[in-house]
Amino acid sequence: MNERHFDDLNAGDRFKSEPLIVTEKELIEFAHKFDPQMFHLSRRRAERTIFKGLIASGWHTAAMTMRLFVKTLNFAEGAIGLGVDELRWPNAVRPGDVLTVETEILDARPSRSRPGYGIIRLRNLTTNQRDEVAQTMLANAMVPRRNNARRQDH
Amino acid sequence: MNERHFDDLNAGDRFKSEPLIVTEKELIEFAHKFDPQMFHLSRRRAERTIFKGLIASGWHTAAMTMRLFVKTLNFAEGAIGLGVDELRWPNAVRPGDVLTVETEILDARPSRSRPGYGIIRLRNLTTNQRDEVAQTMLANAMVPRRNNARRQDH
Repeated sequence: MNERHFDDLNAGDRFKSEPLIVTEKELIEFAHKFDPQMFHLSRRRAERTIFKGLIASGWHTAAMTMRLFVKTLNFAEGAIGLGVDELRWPNAVRPGDVLTVETEILDARPSRSRPGYGIIRLRNLTTNQRDEVAQTMLANAMVPRRNNARRQDH
Repeated sequence: MNERHFDDLNAGDRFKSEPLIVTEKELIEFAHKFDPQMFHLSRRRAERTIFKGLIASGWHTAAMTMRLFVKTLNFAEGAIGLGVDELRWPNAVRPGDVLTVETEILDARPSRSRPGYGIIRLRNLTTNQRDEVAQTMLANAMVPRRNNARRQDH
C-alpha cells in the first residue's frame, strides 16, 4: 500500500475506510478497562438503563475511528494528533454494528515551525450500517512532507 | 463509596483522581488495537521518530482519563457523554508516567428535555508525575438527579 505524505493531500479530498464490526466482547472489554459504567459493562445491567441495552463507550468509538482512519490514510511515519474539536456521539453504537469512517481534508498548509511537516485539518464522520452518524469530530494533525525526511532530526 | 447525583454538584466543585501508572505493555497493546503508528508500537521503532521514544496514543490518554474520571465521580447510574470540545495533548505520555485527573465542574443545570437528569459542563485536566499537562478537555455530560429514579422509564 502506498504511504501518504502531506504533499498528497488537498482541501476537499475525501477518503472512505473499510468497515469494522463492533463485537460485544470487545465492547465490554474496553468498558472494563476504561469506562466501567453499567450501560457499557453487561447486557443484563444495560437493559435496565436509559439505553435499553449495551452500548459502546464513546471513547471506544473514538478509538475504533482512529484505527480506521490510520489504516485508510496510511501516513508515512504517522500522523501526530495536535488536537480534537467538536467530538460528538449522536447515535449509540451497539454490538454487531458495522462502522465506517469518512475523512474529509478541510485544510492543508505547511508547518511554520517544522519545515519537514505540514498541518492538516480534517473531519472524521463515523457511520453505522444504517448510515446513522455514530460520531463526528474535527481534528488537526501534523504529517511529514515528502522528500524532507533528511531534514528531520532522525 | 457514595454514589453521586446531579444534585450533589455545583459550578466550581473540584475533584482529584487517584494516580494511574502507564505501563509499556498496555501502551503498546492499545496502539496495536486502535492506533498502529510507529511512535506507539515498539520502543525500537519509536526511537527513530520525532518523539525519540515510545509515546501513548492520545486516544489511550483520553481513555485512561475517562477511567480515572468515572472512578472519582462515581455517578449513580453513570454519566452519559454528550460531547467533548478542545481535546488537546500538550505533552507526550511515556511508559512509566503516572497520570492524575483533576475535574472542575464549570456549570450544572437541570435537563429541559429529561426531568430525571441534569447536564454538567466540566473540564478534565490530566497531568503526569512532573505536573506537566498531558491532556486537557471540556465535556458535557448528562447525569441522573436524586429521587427521580421512579420518573425514569426503567
